[in-house]
Amino acid sequence: MHKTPSDGYSLTLRLRFANRPGMLGRVTSTIGEAGGDIGAVDIVEAGGGQIIRDITVAAGDETHGEEIVATVAKLPDVTVVNVSDRVFLRHLGGKIEIRNKRPLQTRADLSMAYTPGVARVCMAIHNDPQKVFNLTIKRNTIAVVTDGTAVLGLGDIGPAAALPVMEGKAMLFKEFGGVDAFPICLDTKDPDEIVRTVKAIAPGLGGINLEDISAPRCFEIEDRLKSELDIPVFHDDQHGTAVVVLAALINALKIVEKRIEDIKVVVSGVGAAGVACSKILINAGVKNIIGCDRAGAIYSGRTEHMNTAKQWYAENTNPEGLRGKLGEVIAGADLYLGLSGPGTIEADALSRMNRDAIVFALANPTPEIMPEDAAPYVRVMATGRSDYPNQINNVLCFPGIFRGALDCRASDINEEMKLAAAYAIAAIVSDDELSTDYIIPSVFNRRVAPAVAAGVEDAARRTGVARRGKENWQES
Amino acid sequence: MHKTPSDGYSLTLRLRFANRPGMLGRVTSTIGEAGGDIGAVDIVEAGGGQIIRDITVAAGDETHGEEIVATVAKLPDVTVVNVSDRVFLRHLGGKIEIRNKRPLQTRADLSMAYTPGVARVCMAIHNDPQKVFNLTIKRNTIAVVTDGTAVLGLGDIGPAAALPVMEGKAMLFKEFGGVDAFPICLDTKDPDEIVRTVKAIAPGLGGINLEDISAPRCFEIEDRLKSELDIPVFHDDQHGTAVVVLAALINALKIVEKRIEDIKVVVSGVGAAGVACSKILINAGVKNIIGCDRAGAIYSGRTEHMNTAKQWYAENTNPEGLRGKLGEVIAGADLYLGLSGPGTIEADALSRMNRDAIVFALANPTPEIMPEDAAPYVRVMATGRSDYPNQINNVLCFPGIFRGALDCRASDINEEMKLAAAYAIAAIVSDDELSTDYIIPSVFNRRVAPAVAAGVEDAARRTGVARRGKENWQES
Repeated sequence: MHKTPSDGYSLTLRLRFANRPGMLGRVTSTIGEAGGDIGAVDIVEAGGGQIIRDITVAAGDETHGEEIVATVAKLPDVTVVNVSDRVFLRHLGGKIEIRNKRPLQTRADLSMAYTPGVARVCMAIHNDPQKVFNLTIKRNTIAVVTDGTAVLGLGDIGPAAALPVMEGKAMLFKEFGGVDAFPICLDTKDPDEIVRTVKAIAPGLGGINLEDISAPRCFEIEDRLKSELDIPVFHDDQHGTAVVVLAALINALKIVEKRIEDIKVVVSGVGAAGVACSKILINAGVKNIIGCDRAGAIYSGRTEHMNTAKQWYAENTNPEGLRGKLGEVIAGADLYLGLSGPGTIEADALSRMNRDAIVFALANPTPEIMPEDAAPYVRVMATGRSDYPNQINNVLCFPGIFRGALDCRASDINEEMKLAAAYAIAAIVSDDELSTDYIIPSVFNRRVAPAVAAGVEDAARRTGVARRGKENWQES
Repeated sequence: MHKTPSDGYSLTLRLRFANRPGMLGRVTSTIGEAGGDIGAVDIVEAGGGQIIRDITVAAGDETHGEEIVATVAKLPDVTVVNVSDRVFLRHLGGKIEIRNKRPLQTRADLSMAYTPGVARVCMAIHNDPQKVFNLTIKRNTIAVVTDGTAVLGLGDIGPAAALPVMEGKAMLFKEFGGVDAFPICLDTKDPDEIVRTVKAIAPGLGGINLEDISAPRCFEIEDRLKSELDIPVFHDDQHGTAVVVLAALINALKIVEKRIEDIKVVVSGVGAAGVACSKILINAGVKNIIGCDRAGAIYSGRTEHMNTAKQWYAENTNPEGLRGKLGEVIAGADLYLGLSGPGTIEADALSRMNRDAIVFALANPTPEIMPEDAAPYVRVMATGRSDYPNQINNVLCFPGIFRGALDCRASDINEEMKLAAAYAIAAIVSDDELSTDYIIPSVFNRRVAPAVAAGVEDAARRTGVARRGKENWQES
């Protein structure tokens, strides 16, 4: 059984074979039988009874791609001329660039954008520091900052190797939120040094998106930057996930007709995302939440395998003081939220949940339990994957949340703004549309980011962190 | 006498007046008599015997602009509806933005640019760190780094107020060199902290352009970064100026038919640019160079008003050990190079120079001596201004020098590369074209940057700092 083919493992095979009826069919059938998903088929060249074709094939993973090529190469009268990896081709030279907003082609352009004209703009900012927001890129520019210690599921691969992810993130910020995001990959893992560096580069930035920084360092770094900077600081791995989880839960609860105050939640995985999800659920009204790590439930008084974050967790969750393994404390739960790893929970355990169980199994790429295995025991299921219904994806949150924060010149992204973002995402799915297979909008739904931005901006004004009134808005 | 009008002080006056013959003429004549230079004249609205027009006017400076508006406002039957400052309008929301190089609109796009495809690209870099140059923006991206301590002629205005200049610089990098440059404005003036911060953000960058950092801190910061980073570090205020000064001198010497080895050079101003210019002149062959500050000539053994840079200067220049004021040591000089301030030298002093004197008076916006005053005593004159012949402008250097360095993945921008840049700029002016009024190409000459890049790349290969052979080049 091959993995589901994805364009993330997409190859272009350049093949030469005899130009006669039936040959292309034999090639494509062979690829199909090998589990490859064929996209474009182009002719490169034909003549002398031979034809050269480019066939684009999505594989399930890297090894699967190699297997497909090997299988095709064994076909009689077929020569593999070249194999190009479409993903690597797309990354050559990077995925983003700097562009000038206006031309710079005449002496007049130069006099206005640079000397001597620019001097007056500098002095205007020097005399009134708030003007930097209107007269420079600070208004719309954030940094995507990482130290490369917790990149995707790859772990600590270092700052340079993390850059393709940060560029991808910057693309998403621009495409969905119109936010200019520049990747900053830090050559240090020391929290003091990270805080110092981000503070040092902050004057030209309108916000900081922390990314793929490992726990528990990420908590301290975010807390310190939030308190020491006057621009929004947001650790997406924590809060982006939390916002989208809450959005999905809001809609799932409508289906199962339960109130958020009444449900019992069990979380497996108490890292950065687990803690942030638990906090937002508590802020949204959840009263009974129990976190589990490998040692089992976290409870007040537990002394083994603890850290600062878990200590907070022990003091603020698990009101009944339950002890035991995940499979035990899950009895009677309404929501199982997995933020751990593949195979963390068994179907059998799910059978002990309350009626109309909700399961969010968010480990990526392989969930805590596969939807097929969970199905018999679950009413609403969500994962982090795009090839199953209900994908919990941070892209639904971060472009809109920064769009809203930048538009009102917020000094912070606070809890109310995150809650507003979650309610805005949930509200995109209308009551008519809502179903067990559609509790959360698609990442390509263009209504999401503007709705999130509007909700976030309202919340910022309500909570006093917006520094620009609506009346001051000037289009650039 | 008003200053020469510049688009750097450009206003758009929205005026309402009676729609009858002769009125527009009266308005434009008045503006002209007030010294304003009229650009576009547009009709906004007409009716009821009235007309509203937008008239664009370049003034000599801010006060002059206000005078023009006041004069027009006094005209009978003319109402000033609005005055907008074109320079500020151009700066609203900043001058540069981040753009995605490819669309991100389908699931396939997302799978290739982000997860899951991006993970393989990350791991490729993790396994072979040199691949970061090919597979990310590092190949073409530099930071323009300032602490805002020596911005234009404005001095220490701080990092936020410096941002409009850094954005302008980034525009020039893109427009002339195709280099993606991102402004980093630092909230610290401490050299240790600046070095630490720049090193921390370096993994994603292909080069560092230091900008508007005051002397003598700029020397230490540049030296340390050059030795501790494996990407090019270039302080443009020093070396950009030096390269273009040398280019101008190379051509000026052709006109006066002197050899660089034989000339006597007197430099006034021994700050960042003065030291760098002197060094490149020495590297290009000048044997007799004397620097002057307010205390007069710098000589070996001088003890007053010294610093580390001047100490170097004392030990490496002024071979005859001349002492005295600028006006004295200039006797017999072939080149006077001013990098100080307005009025530093008098015409009388120039009269004591050698035959066919060359004067580069580069203080901006007001030179050490105005070309009109110097003319009787000078054969070749250059300034930093665009409204006189022979403008010495760093724009001729920095886009091409980084283009060349990035193209061959240079680990450094060394002396040979700077010399090559100067010779490439000089060579753009052919022997046929060369004249006392044309020793240096225009900043808008599109042949300059590619020629500089080619010369710089050759020099990098020759000196062993290029890390990519020509054969490895891959277009993105």
